[in-house]
Amino acid sequence: MPQSDSIHFSAAERETLHKIIAARRDMRHFLPGQTVDKDVLERIMTAAHMAPSVGLMQPWRFIHIRNKSLRENIAQLVDKEIQQTANALSERKSEFLKLKLEGIRECAELIAVIRAPDDGTMLGRRTLPEEMALCSTACAIQNLWLAARAENLGLGWVSLFNPDTLAKQLNCPKGALPIALLCLGPVKAFYEKPMLTETGWREGKTLDRVSFTDYWAEE
Amino acid sequence: MPQSDSIHFSAAERETLHKIIAARRDMRHFLPGQTVDKDVLERIMTAAHMAPSVGLMQPWRFIHIRNKSLRENIAQLVDKEIQQTANALSERKSEFLKLKLEGIRECAELIAVIRAPDDGTMLGRRTLPEEMALCSTACAIQNLWLAARAENLGLGWVSLFNPDTLAKQLNCPKGALPIALLCLGPVKAFYEKPMLTETGWREGKTLDRVSFTDYWAEE
Repeated sequence: MPQSDSIHFSAAERETLHKIIAARRDMRHFLPGQTVDKDVLERIMTAAHMAPSVGLMQPWRFIHIRNKSLRENIAQLVDKEIQQTANALSERKSEFLKLKLEGIRECAELIAVIRAPDDGTMLGRRTLPEEMALCSTACAIQNLWLAARAENLGLGWVSLFNPDTLAKQLNCPKGALPIALLCLGPVKAFYEKPMLTETGWREGKTLDRVSFTDYWAEE
Repeated sequence: MPQSDSIHFSAAERETLHKIIAARRDMRHFLPGQTVDKDVLERIMTAAHMAPSVGLMQPWRFIHIRNKSLRENIAQLVDKEIQQTANALSERKSEFLKLKLEGIRECAELIAVIRAPDDGTMLGRRTLPEEMALCSTACAIQNLWLAARAENLGLGWVSLFNPDTLAKQLNCPKGALPIALLCLGPVKAFYEKPMLTETGWREGKTLDRVSFTDYWAEE
């Protein structure tokens, strides 16, 4: 297929992408006392910002948490939510509390990701306005995640927090929604499988179970 | 930094990822009458399914539209929404109607992506249940998108549809939400910049405008 002047990727380049996608993990164990070089962080954030967004609205905002007491306050907010989730889980509470679910205090860099207040973008989101803003923000996070893995850095998406409280802690304006606390930094090793599978919490589905033809056909 | 047995990526591999991320575009112009090889599609869908998901819920469902009349019905649904968006835009209506916004009829493969009904996953989504299901589904789409680009195939995320009507057309169960019609296939060339920028519809922001330290600081 002729691609005119467009970049044509080789099989080797394609395989590199698949290797990175397969090696990416949701990390919660980080080496403490580490840093991420400025150049490395810049490359990762540039990749995030190259994500697609509906109507080119780019609704992602990244807050780099550098203040130590702010980080500690956020860590305590997450601790609180972990306790509340444990209570809500009842049956699996003790098993849940054995899992390590975040690396807020240890990770080299902590980045809060906020879905910005609605800017009125209509193109492509008349029927799904909030959904498309969230999805665009998530695409940026996935780019960020893959870019981090390619730097051999771990990244964990922590969603265990009260979003209203976190928004206040970060001085977010009305209408802004924190959706992620990203823990980023060096790790001793990457989990071989998703941590929730390694620990016996849950198994993933096979691809055929989520793929249908023409009509929904879930068993 | 020692990485134990984990895969260590080289600078060249990292650069390949960045090249793919930078070359990815939201495509609406496809070469008609084309197909995507089964092996290629399998690789792309496998990459999608390797996405992260909160609590390992894997809320994405992929419906491959193969029935021609079903595809035509979906195309008409999108035509209708484009008209309704045009009416809602009022001032920029004529400019909007000149944009090519989808390639539903021409693309080689059409894939509907559905956010599955809530499976009750609590871990990581007690406070943001719908948001985290949507974000996980979007991460799968971003993987899919990058994998498509690495195969030198275009992909466009069409969100111009009434989700309730599309859910009915695809026999989706109650609680399932269609969030994307993905047009996939060979293209003549990839846009050099986002199509909305190339056509003068909208410029993107620079990274510094979406990055803050410690607290929200948008101008």
